[in-house]
Amino acid sequence: MGTEMVNVDEIPFPPQIAIATKPLSLLGHGITDIEIHFLQIKFTAIGVYLEPKIVGHLQQWKGKPGNELAENDDFFEALIAAPVEKFLRVVVIKEIKGSQYGVQLESVVRDRLADADKYEEEEEEALEKIVEFFQSKYMKKNSIITFYFPSTSPTAEVRT
Amino acid sequence: MGTEMVNVDEIPFPPQIAIATKPLSLLGHGITDIEIHFLQIKFTAIGVYLEPKIVGHLQQWKGKPGNELAENDDFFEALIAAPVEKFLRVVVIKEIKGSQYGVQLESVVRDRLADADKYEEEEEEALEKIVEFFQSKYMKKNSIITFYFPSTSPTAEVRT
Repeated sequence: MGTEMVNVDEIPFPPQIAIATKPLSLLGHGITDIEIHFLQIKFTAIGVYLEPKIVGHLQQWKGKPGNELAENDDFFEALIAAPVEKFLRVVVIKEIKGSQYGVQLESVVRDRLADADKYEEEEEEALEKIVEFFQSKYMKKNSIITFYFPSTSPTAEVRT
Repeated sequence: MGTEMVNVDEIPFPPQIAIATKPLSLLGHGITDIEIHFLQIKFTAIGVYLEPKIVGHLQQWKGKPGNELAENDDFFEALIAAPVEKFLRVVVIKEIKGSQYGVQLESVVRDRLADADKYEEEEEEALEKIVEFFQSKYMKKNSIITFYFPSTSPTAEVRT
């Protein structure tokens, strides 16, 4: 297709257009870590980006402190269910093989789904796709992994 | 929120992120015009941008000439129904008041919906929104109007 403009009755049209969604705001962040023998090992830093209009869907928790909300399942459910775009930016702190990362992600997601009695064939297949996606990658320090959840689609998009 | 980077455990995160969809390609174009007393009056040039993967949904028409496809309702239906992003870029050739443009758009869309027996309350309301959107605009030559149809959402987005 090339990159030259296409003339339609003398009016130039770009041969390709990328559509940008409304900007998402960094509304939450944190890190993943473990402590071994009093030594903190940091794995990743995570930023949670959401459409600002999500606050309209979370009015009933207005003014509640963060540490209370972090343990509130209803708040989490409402946040996930809100019909807005969601985006996670994960920055690798401790380098890791993609195959390891994928298996760990599979394991924690599977356990949580099983706890909620929601781990069935479809979920297993989706997790297998994630494991496969990460299989051949290697994530050095500062590598970025993104997870994009469109507001209306049931399919998420993972990139590294 | 500002524009400064937010540090999460010394790792910088942008305060806002805009998600871009995959690029859409200019797969069709044309103009709208009328002829009055042998004089051609051109109104707009239109570019049709689609995700390239749409060709996979249109295999049964492969190799058919364009003039045949232009009159084929089944082809049009399949194109509209394909679960891909669609984007129209309309460039104004002959300047027009937004109020006029809106009313003309309403009129042709209403007639086509009515022909297909699909013009009901919901459609009427949606068209009223379009008329209202254009009401206060004035479109000079080279103004751009875009219509964006996400692949999964029933709501289109109009911008000028």
